[in-house]
Amino acid sequence: MEAYLDNSATTPPCPEAVDAVRNALERCWGNPSSLHRVGLEGERLLNRCRETVARSLCCQPAEVIFTGGGTESNNLAMLGAAMAQKRRGGRIVTSAVEHSSIAECAKELANQGFDVVYLQVDSTGRVSEEELMRLINQDTVLVSLMAVNNEVGTIQPVDAIRRIVRYHNAPAVIHCDAVQAYGKLPVDPQGMGVDLLTVSSHKIHGPKGAGALYVRGGLHILPILFGGSQENKRRPGTEGMPGIAGFAAAAAAIPDHAATLAYVSTLRERLVGGLRRIHGVRLNSPSDSLPYLTNISAPGLRSETLLNYLSARGIYVSSGSACAKGRKSRVLEAMGLSDAEIAGALRISLSRVTTWEEIEYFLYALEEACATLAR
Amino acid sequence: MEAYLDNSATTPPCPEAVDAVRNALERCWGNPSSLHRVGLEGERLLNRCRETVARSLCCQPAEVIFTGGGTESNNLAMLGAAMAQKRRGGRIVTSAVEHSSIAECAKELANQGFDVVYLQVDSTGRVSEEELMRLINQDTVLVSLMAVNNEVGTIQPVDAIRRIVRYHNAPAVIHCDAVQAYGKLPVDPQGMGVDLLTVSSHKIHGPKGAGALYVRGGLHILPILFGGSQENKRRPGTEGMPGIAGFAAAAAAIPDHAATLAYVSTLRERLVGGLRRIHGVRLNSPSDSLPYLTNISAPGLRSETLLNYLSARGIYVSSGSACAKGRKSRVLEAMGLSDAEIAGALRISLSRVTTWEEIEYFLYALEEACATLAR
Repeated sequence: MEAYLDNSATTPPCPEAVDAVRNALERCWGNPSSLHRVGLEGERLLNRCRETVARSLCCQPAEVIFTGGGTESNNLAMLGAAMAQKRRGGRIVTSAVEHSSIAECAKELANQGFDVVYLQVDSTGRVSEEELMRLINQDTVLVSLMAVNNEVGTIQPVDAIRRIVRYHNAPAVIHCDAVQAYGKLPVDPQGMGVDLLTVSSHKIHGPKGAGALYVRGGLHILPILFGGSQENKRRPGTEGMPGIAGFAAAAAAIPDHAATLAYVSTLRERLVGGLRRIHGVRLNSPSDSLPYLTNISAPGLRSETLLNYLSARGIYVSSGSACAKGRKSRVLEAMGLSDAEIAGALRISLSRVTTWEEIEYFLYALEEACATLAR
Repeated sequence: MEAYLDNSATTPPCPEAVDAVRNALERCWGNPSSLHRVGLEGERLLNRCRETVARSLCCQPAEVIFTGGGTESNNLAMLGAAMAQKRRGGRIVTSAVEHSSIAECAKELANQGFDVVYLQVDSTGRVSEEELMRLINQDTVLVSLMAVNNEVGTIQPVDAIRRIVRYHNAPAVIHCDAVQAYGKLPVDPQGMGVDLLTVSSHKIHGPKGAGALYVRGGLHILPILFGGSQENKRRPGTEGMPGIAGFAAAAAAIPDHAATLAYVSTLRERLVGGLRRIHGVRLNSPSDSLPYLTNISAPGLRSETLLNYLSARGIYVSSGSACAKGRKSRVLEAMGLSDAEIAGALRISLSRVTTWEEIEYFLYALEEACATLAR
């Protein structure tokens, strides 16, 4: 028996994605920039993929820029928008709980002279509208807030930003890192009032190495890589077609959000119910977090010890973001957790293919781990 | 009958690469940064791929940084090295015939205040050692020269740069864009005396969307993307494992260089012999260019017209670099060709899977095209 419960780190590719990748390798392998028939077939595939991903984001195909993944999309959004906007003001507003790719871009922009300020979160990991109101000012050129936190699942009030930006009459471009929301909740950048939005393929059962940035039609951002004219001059280099094709196939295979969310919610209820009965386990995710993500702490135990214990039994969870690889969680720190709680944190992340049995097996093993390891 | 003779734009993926991609999608899909067994399997695959690509470059695994492709590798080399070196001097030396990703990075660095100077080429497209001696000075922090030109196949004197840099006592880091040489000639950055070297997967029968940058052990370059600590903190983001696995499999499948070169040389001889008999066709590639690449002109005809004529007959060649997509060739211009010669240029690029029949079919159709279209 195995239980893969680390779907926020990466998801198993779906069969549709695997087939699409193979097709892009074996049949439709032309360079989309080549002017002959083989190239044209590549270009047609690229166009179809762009339409598919656009449909999943309720946007126009021309608003989708394919990138090498979520990190590159976040970099293009942050650096590309800040550079394009820098004559209009100097403030950049982001949160204390963003993914490392946003946090590190923010640091880089601070080094370059931008006035980068960080929205603090409450004990549920949430940014308040008051906090947004307080930090966004008329000098603000960029606001970046994630849709769903990647460690605890907290849903952020991204919808409120546009109103607050208007209130302050700020020239701000609004970016949303929707990597953890995409495929789990409806993601509609126009409806959310954002100008830029990041999605990643490998979090929605697509291949690693592909992602996209939604760029609102008419918005000017500068490229961060230089070269050919691909992706409407915004991202140079021969398009990574196998990855893009797999990404688009995975996007097309996203099932009805409501039905999947209902299913995952029942898994989460069982998970939380079981966790509550394990002595010494603390729930770090708020009850209204995205049901796909549950963060817990077993104070007194170390995450690594638990991870190893569970991994040896075929159960795969994480101590936090995979990208942080063992470093102390900034997110849990910002939520005010104690060092002991942070040191014993586990993230259990589900997907639409997670089974009831996997949850039961995890609960059984965790209870055993807590009893055995705490001695 | 079809003839794919545009292998410098992209190559058909080899079966080994297709299988490796599928394995990375279906079996070994863990996030290499995840600390559990599924992640560990991903990490082991990543390590094996790095060893394989390192072997193909006669270098250490730690000297290989995986990227999203040749363009990103070139950007990381140019921008990352220039930024790391900028206190040591201001001059950057590159050639007038580089790939657009180098040319555009050079422009960007000139905008940022670097003194970017361009090596001119002779009528064969070659940079001379005198020219290198003339432009490299003791203020030079970066020299970037391609190994093999992507439009005409001219082999550049990259080996000479180290000696000239030493002669001037320059602090220069040496970068070589070896995208068109890799898989066709032995590529050994240490033997060539270069510090940074770019290779791409899809030019060696691997998948698009993967590449690598060789960074000599001990050399300091700055990252150009910001985020997690992947790739030894030089390239953040979850590694594009399917692409990397396919790339490594393609690198492992590169056959003996000497035997393949001998085979491709016989194809080239037949090609050139046939071209010489077609009235009005001019050979733009020098006779000592890499046999894989042959650039010709049919003055009086337009490349697009020829391309379409040939494409309709199942013959796929290009008018120049795929990335330039129809724009006037900087390379042929630098070589001193007339506008009419540039406007009627064709690039015929071979691979190890090109057949004798494809060459014959192309020659037959080109002769017919010249006779028919010139009327």
